[in-house]
Amino acid sequence: MTAKPLSGKELAASIREDVTARAARLTDAGTPPRLTVVTATKDESSAWYVSSIAKAATKAGITCDVLDCGPDAPADALRETLRKLSADPAVHGIIMQTPLPEGIRLDDVAEAIGTDKDVDGANPSSLGRLAVGRPAFAPATAEAVIELLDHHQIPVPASDVAVVGRSAVVGKPLAHLLLNRHATVTVCHSRTRDLPAVTERADILVAAAGRAGLITADHVRKGAVVIDVGTNVAEDGSLVGDVAPQAAEKAAALTPVPGGVGPVTTALLLRHTVQAAEQQRT
Amino acid sequence: MTAKPLSGKELAASIREDVTARAARLTDAGTPPRLTVVTATKDESSAWYVSSIAKAATKAGITCDVLDCGPDAPADALRETLRKLSADPAVHGIIMQTPLPEGIRLDDVAEAIGTDKDVDGANPSSLGRLAVGRPAFAPATAEAVIELLDHHQIPVPASDVAVVGRSAVVGKPLAHLLLNRHATVTVCHSRTRDLPAVTERADILVAAAGRAGLITADHVRKGAVVIDVGTNVAEDGSLVGDVAPQAAEKAAALTPVPGGVGPVTTALLLRHTVQAAEQQRT
Repeated sequence: MTAKPLSGKELAASIREDVTARAARLTDAGTPPRLTVVTATKDESSAWYVSSIAKAATKAGITCDVLDCGPDAPADALRETLRKLSADPAVHGIIMQTPLPEGIRLDDVAEAIGTDKDVDGANPSSLGRLAVGRPAFAPATAEAVIELLDHHQIPVPASDVAVVGRSAVVGKPLAHLLLNRHATVTVCHSRTRDLPAVTERADILVAAAGRAGLITADHVRKGAVVIDVGTNVAEDGSLVGDVAPQAAEKAAALTPVPGGVGPVTTALLLRHTVQAAEQQRT
Repeated sequence: MTAKPLSGKELAASIREDVTARAARLTDAGTPPRLTVVTATKDESSAWYVSSIAKAATKAGITCDVLDCGPDAPADALRETLRKLSADPAVHGIIMQTPLPEGIRLDDVAEAIGTDKDVDGANPSSLGRLAVGRPAFAPATAEAVIELLDHHQIPVPASDVAVVGRSAVVGKPLAHLLLNRHATVTVCHSRTRDLPAVTERADILVAAAGRAGLITADHVRKGAVVIDVGTNVAEDGSLVGDVAPQAAEKAAALTPVPGGVGPVTTALLLRHTVQAAEQQRT
């Protein structure tokens, strides 16, 4: 048995198509949607990621500005930048790109992003609203997992889901999105006593630990659905997930890396931006 | 075997002692700590609970006002009241008591409580901050569970914890408090497929569903620690938990109802209030 590949490409394309139409309507109405990505790093893979967002945005008819604060930007300066952008009516969506300068936490500076423009759900207030089921933008990666499950018609309610990783940008918000969908959710992490014992019970296993090959066949129940959120750069420069290739032998379905969660994430950032622009018009 | 009772009375007394000393210092310094409980209900058990908070506050040297908006108060009026109290420098802590008038959600109106005065962690922003490990007041009931575990020296890191109930005031914030303490956390609820199968794996089982007797001996692993957050009013008017009495035969330790989580919760509301008053002075 080899796992069915849960591609994200078709889903991402259909989201981008919708976004492109909505962006055109906004532009025709005199409010061209605009996304600003704030950076404060010299990290190369981050630069690559930002340029791929900018390209995708432009292609969809969204203006994307990249505002580089430099790798030594103090937290106060980042907050001030985010506050100004939040107050600027021409900007509809704001992303604070990671990594940040040493010692600065994303959740700390992201409180300066207005929740109505927080298209990657980085402000802890967005997470809190999400947790209680109020309108808020979820971190795009967490939402991409849900969208992929829906797209491939994998039922979530009453399922047992294990989320490996407890980050503020994936594991925690995803746990809430899954709870809102009536899944029974277990959040595991580096301090989990017996990871395979926990993950092996799951109908749906989400790997979001950021460690290449962490999830092996031993972690997967036969017939489980495995969603690989990991995007780790291998020694040869290729992109690999958190799930080892042999896990595919036990899983019923598995997202590829690249080509699974990644493209959906980028498409959702764009969807959030047009959504933010639509909401800010009214 | 009968479970060791995990009493909350001694812990609550020691918290109140600390609070009383801190309240006296605040009063001596010219800033007597003040808590306002906003109500909008005719519910009798709610009135009983509010009066018990008010009594405990007064006894600890905290002024406690109860502001009754009436059972027909519209959401806007509640928000306006909470906003005014948040702006009033003489008020240090604010509680929006439930139940609310029909159709009004706590998380909706509670956004009007300034997070610095949100001593029962009702504002979704407080939950979001808690989730990412930033300073915030946790809902007192959720924090009481952690305090009780600590007080009775029950180790949390690397333990498997099942939380039954996914409310915004107990289950969800408690999941984050436990994750912050490095537990592996499973959140179960009414839609969980096989509740006993899930809870039976837990080292620590927290019952916070609000359904009398939901947790039976079948749900408990032999030797597990069981924390009963339920406060259900039985037909004879007595207070009963979510845990059926026979579960005590399998558990190693169990919180009594009443006398377990309850008194610690009230004591923590007072501690949050003096803490808020201390922070607002500086």
